[in-house]
Amino acid sequence: MTGRFTVTYHVRCPATEIEARARGIAVEQSVEMPLAAIADETVLSDIVGAVEGIGDVGDGVFAVRIGLAIATAGQDAGQLLNMVFGNTSLHNDVALHDIAVPDSLVRLFGGPRHGLAALRSRLNASGRAMTGSALKPQGLPPEKLAHLAGQLALGGLDFIKDDHGLADQAYSPFAGRVAACAEAVACGARSTGHPTRYVPSLTGDLDALRAQARLARSLGLDCAMLAPMICGFPAMQALVRDFPDMAFFAHPSMGGAARIAPDLLIGTLFRLMGADAVIFPSFGGRFGYARETCGRLADRARGTGDGMRAALPVPAGGMTLERTGEILDFYGDDTMLLIGGNLLMAGDQIAAETERFTRTVSDRGSHRPAS
Amino acid sequence: MTGRFTVTYHVRCPATEIEARARGIAVEQSVEMPLAAIADETVLSDIVGAVEGIGDVGDGVFAVRIGLAIATAGQDAGQLLNMVFGNTSLHNDVALHDIAVPDSLVRLFGGPRHGLAALRSRLNASGRAMTGSALKPQGLPPEKLAHLAGQLALGGLDFIKDDHGLADQAYSPFAGRVAACAEAVACGARSTGHPTRYVPSLTGDLDALRAQARLARSLGLDCAMLAPMICGFPAMQALVRDFPDMAFFAHPSMGGAARIAPDLLIGTLFRLMGADAVIFPSFGGRFGYARETCGRLADRARGTGDGMRAALPVPAGGMTLERTGEILDFYGDDTMLLIGGNLLMAGDQIAAETERFTRTVSDRGSHRPAS
Repeated sequence: MTGRFTVTYHVRCPATEIEARARGIAVEQSVEMPLAAIADETVLSDIVGAVEGIGDVGDGVFAVRIGLAIATAGQDAGQLLNMVFGNTSLHNDVALHDIAVPDSLVRLFGGPRHGLAALRSRLNASGRAMTGSALKPQGLPPEKLAHLAGQLALGGLDFIKDDHGLADQAYSPFAGRVAACAEAVACGARSTGHPTRYVPSLTGDLDALRAQARLARSLGLDCAMLAPMICGFPAMQALVRDFPDMAFFAHPSMGGAARIAPDLLIGTLFRLMGADAVIFPSFGGRFGYARETCGRLADRARGTGDGMRAALPVPAGGMTLERTGEILDFYGDDTMLLIGGNLLMAGDQIAAETERFTRTVSDRGSHRPAS
Repeated sequence: MTGRFTVTYHVRCPATEIEARARGIAVEQSVEMPLAAIADETVLSDIVGAVEGIGDVGDGVFAVRIGLAIATAGQDAGQLLNMVFGNTSLHNDVALHDIAVPDSLVRLFGGPRHGLAALRSRLNASGRAMTGSALKPQGLPPEKLAHLAGQLALGGLDFIKDDHGLADQAYSPFAGRVAACAEAVACGARSTGHPTRYVPSLTGDLDALRAQARLARSLGLDCAMLAPMICGFPAMQALVRDFPDMAFFAHPSMGGAARIAPDLLIGTLFRLMGADAVIFPSFGGRFGYARETCGRLADRARGTGDGMRAALPVPAGGMTLERTGEILDFYGDDTMLLIGGNLLMAGDQIAAETERFTRTVSDRGSHRPAS
């Protein structure tokens, strides 16, 4: 790989200092040493970051475009993060705003192996948004989570995912819990005739992630969830490569703590690393992402101009049945609406309430042919 | 494991809302659903987070102490992060301020396997601060990096680490580069009689990290560097466990992007996960950490009140030879002073300039017996 790719940072600093700051970032994110101490001509010409432009975006913030050498990213997803924001993340007046992902990195990381259209196809879900809910609370034993999973499946959901807190805890070990939930969802799906998917959350180191993915596969599951900022980008890269038959949902846990633009991190980078669906906190829920941020994030997830498959955007985090219309009007049909806690409020009427949810979404669908 | 551990968040919000926000965080970081929808008594009593106290820390910020169930963290370093800050990281008005790490998690994760005293002993470095430098810039071929490593070793340094940008790139693949640098450092060490250690940076997924650690070990190396926020806490946990003979240096790359107090993240959590030495950007250099933050971070790294070994604090990031006295006055002898780019400015006088650095540090040492 040769050439450069452009990374855009938003830097808060006085106008008189921005040119020096820009040069500083270009050095920090490449050779990290005084240029005067570099004798090697190739390093100076090909490796040192280059300031490509500076724009004033207002409110004392400047957009700084730096060209970084593609070769420095190597073949590793972690090293890509390291090169675009490793040390500069330590400057609290700099945010990582955007990355123009070059074709060579698109080919290297590959993006979604299945993506939005394949998920639609698996679920026979054409011409409407997709639906999902989450198994919770953590602390329940496997049989209670499985009972809940069965009730949700009877409501005709497309996806039932683990809450991201469910891991491999003593009170609900992964193997027993996932087997019980998979069986309950399969049972519900046989009853409704709708091929509802159960999406277990995979946690731990790469050994554990692989063992859990193998177990999920052996139970007939073809979807799983990961939290890239918890397991690490390198582990995600490996898992997506090793389990090409599985569709991966990316969870944003720990993602908001990074001063990385959410639409870039979740909409672009998670998808680049192979997420088939990206879960994110929607505006109007319990979290603080602005409506415009959510719109950009969803557009990036679904964009295909870069040669990768579209990923399924999954707005979540405090969604309610009452907001279904508003949410779908905003995101459109190429979306999965995830309602968790709000459905669980229905108590022993969960199956009926879930059915009301799935019917509402279906009724609002344009019922275009599957894209 | 039973019981709770206290996690402290700093929350910026109006005084009239802080109690509700505190309850919200307690729910978000445990069951993540409306409590009214939870029927299980054990979950309500043992799993739901409990607000333990709220204090006004001024400037519109409140310290909120939440008791989280130890059982929810399972046995996985990633899940610990997930439970203490996963979703709450998505709230931009909340920072993770502190964690009272319970004894059970100290035993589980184990802290440094070697620590400050063992590093001193390996280097025969008693009664003085330790010294280090970094191999850079990336982009150089292995033989040029090895030449630099040899020159630095001739100056009598304790540690010569890879720059964190050095990975497994096409222009300088890990295997050839590390073998060449290890040999050059060994050659320099034979010349000076000082047992200078070379510390290669390990990158990639857990398979790659293990392969690189094995290669390093086969070359006679007993130290390696990791970036926990890049490789992921679970990978670090596995590597520290699998290579008990290696001492691990933790690099802060991507660590500043998290709204986690630096002294907690680098001083406490990296050490908890087994870092024997923690590198951090010191005040007065290229980065923004305040003097007080750096002091607390170093104190946490060296603290042993929790039953773990002391880790070696490594202030870095724009240090210069001229600041040696100031830095050592502040951090004391139980410190490693890392000067990278500034030494490299010496060009073909690097060995002599490095020797001046190591002599300055030695002359300022108290020469107490090794702790």
